[in-house]
Amino acid sequence: MEPVTLDLTADVVDVCAQLVDIESVSRNERAVADAVEQALTPLSHLAVQRRGNTLVARTDLGRGERVVIAGHLDTVPLNDNLPSRNDGTSLHGLGACDMKGGDAVILRLAATVAEPVRDVTYVLYEGEEIESEFNGLGHLAADAPELLTADFAILMEPSDGVVEAGCQGTMRVEVTTYGERAHSARAWKGVNAIHLATPVLERLAAYEPRQPLIDGLAYHEGLNAVGIEGGVAGNVLPDRCVVTVNHRFAPDRSEADAEAFLRDFFEGYDVQVTDSAPGALPGLDRPAAKAFVDAVGGTVNPKFGWTDVARFTALGVPAVNFGPGDPMLAHKQEEFVPLDQLRHCERVLADWLGGGR
Amino acid sequence: MEPVTLDLTADVVDVCAQLVDIESVSRNERAVADAVEQALTPLSHLAVQRRGNTLVARTDLGRGERVVIAGHLDTVPLNDNLPSRNDGTSLHGLGACDMKGGDAVILRLAATVAEPVRDVTYVLYEGEEIESEFNGLGHLAADAPELLTADFAILMEPSDGVVEAGCQGTMRVEVTTYGERAHSARAWKGVNAIHLATPVLERLAAYEPRQPLIDGLAYHEGLNAVGIEGGVAGNVLPDRCVVTVNHRFAPDRSEADAEAFLRDFFEGYDVQVTDSAPGALPGLDRPAAKAFVDAVGGTVNPKFGWTDVARFTALGVPAVNFGPGDPMLAHKQEEFVPLDQLRHCERVLADWLGGGR
Repeated sequence: MEPVTLDLTADVVDVCAQLVDIESVSRNERAVADAVEQALTPLSHLAVQRRGNTLVARTDLGRGERVVIAGHLDTVPLNDNLPSRNDGTSLHGLGACDMKGGDAVILRLAATVAEPVRDVTYVLYEGEEIESEFNGLGHLAADAPELLTADFAILMEPSDGVVEAGCQGTMRVEVTTYGERAHSARAWKGVNAIHLATPVLERLAAYEPRQPLIDGLAYHEGLNAVGIEGGVAGNVLPDRCVVTVNHRFAPDRSEADAEAFLRDFFEGYDVQVTDSAPGALPGLDRPAAKAFVDAVGGTVNPKFGWTDVARFTALGVPAVNFGPGDPMLAHKQEEFVPLDQLRHCERVLADWLGGGR
Repeated sequence: MEPVTLDLTADVVDVCAQLVDIESVSRNERAVADAVEQALTPLSHLAVQRRGNTLVARTDLGRGERVVIAGHLDTVPLNDNLPSRNDGTSLHGLGACDMKGGDAVILRLAATVAEPVRDVTYVLYEGEEIESEFNGLGHLAADAPELLTADFAILMEPSDGVVEAGCQGTMRVEVTTYGERAHSARAWKGVNAIHLATPVLERLAAYEPRQPLIDGLAYHEGLNAVGIEGGVAGNVLPDRCVVTVNHRFAPDRSEADAEAFLRDFFEGYDVQVTDSAPGALPGLDRPAAKAFVDAVGGTVNPKFGWTDVARFTALGVPAVNFGPGDPMLAHKQEEFVPLDQLRHCERVLADWLGGGR
């Protein structure tokens, strides 16, 4: 394949269109990483490192504060939505919203803010849209955490150009009931495991979500059956029924708290944790976070979904989501990013990095 | 494969062992049908016809009454349970109970009762243990119903050597709930179809079975979830949940009655009938049935499961189950048939056909 070049002197909208047009479905990020590397390497104010298809570009100006600004380079699979299309108001195409809009802002900042008042570590990474084991930010956190050391981090996932702080944790459990098989013509000889699951669904249907206020942000928990499975044959009482439940918990609770809550909630049933990720507290009391929120206008929303923000929190770095694009459009065929949000995010961040010019 | 021969001059236990040792899993009945055909053809008092791997052998003595005595030749799959083993009390092995014990009795009667007081139609058929489309008795009923014309029929399915009359009907329905997908991190944006299925399970769990008395027999209905399925992904509220329900209904209800009951029971939900077979009334008021019950000792139990007895009922022929072996052992690896039940069934039927000698 012919190498593609990126022109970072172009407008942020054009940079975004260039990025969208380099197909980079997860596990196929080489071309986009090559292009990013070639575009960043000539910039003399940045030290660029590459690990796999993840790029880290750092200023080293000896400032009193360092911030990370990060975005993933991969997208969900193609869905007949390339190449990009600019309708004058929005840029459409695979990844425009999630999150090549954010990436374009990052690359424009890297190219144009040569003397930031805060040292900056730009991170453009691979493998966010698939299993956690492929996540380039996770690899950095595990293998070279010193590259992520900072006072504050901004993850440029789509957030409609508004700061979203913290994120909720997520835990999946399997709640299993056990019966006894019998021919359905003689049901009284057995015990129906699906019928035994009735109280499990009753408890779920009656669940009232906690909506705690944390650092002034109203979170909203959730508890949902995301799967149910039972059945042996059309004439057999099943001896096993599994309800898969996903709990989303506000960041004032740890994974241990969440597990204890679930074990109590489903008391009397077999509960197995199959998957878990901690939430992240907003951390808005930290000076770097406060300064950023003030700089971008003061509006902060809670983040309900889980994002890589939690990886920074786990490293002790307060982090927020802040990026162009409507998060509800992520992973949709018709995703797009509004041009004015691209320009707004670039301007706000350039001002903040430049010292409030 | 070398053709196998059957020696019908042997004891019923030995005939059963010979039959068990001819492997005849459904769709592989040719060898056993060949052996049965070769054993019956020389018997001058019988007219033998073959259709596929189904055999029909008839006396034609101009008696005032005709009875069908029927058994299927196929078995469920091998499960490390061949060849047969005789422990002195029982004969063990694949099909010993379901239903080569009954087949052995049929073949012994065919070979030894040359001048029955009732004309007899012996039917040994293929394809009972699999999808209905392969059922040899069903093929006869559709293609040559005149071969099944009779005043009474005995199906020699295992019934512990006691008469089981009638059979319950069976109907399967899918009860489906519909919600609206949403990301589980923002559950309030959707409607969880699994949670909506809670009242479906509640109704099932609270169901009280009808136990009607019909011709003096106590039936026992049933209503069971035999399957449940829902789920899109681990982080998505599912928009669809399907509960598959199997209803077993006593033979005083028609299929239309059963469907009306189910539609009423699940009122407010989408109910689709996916499978149905009518029950069969015991028909014990018919003279031929009464005479048979008296001859074998008067004890009659209701049949809960669905059997091919219903095919005779549909043809207007009253029919019962009567055969050696415990029906609860059918389809089990360790199935066996007690030797004394084999001999009891042979004696009782030979006496009845011979005229009560």
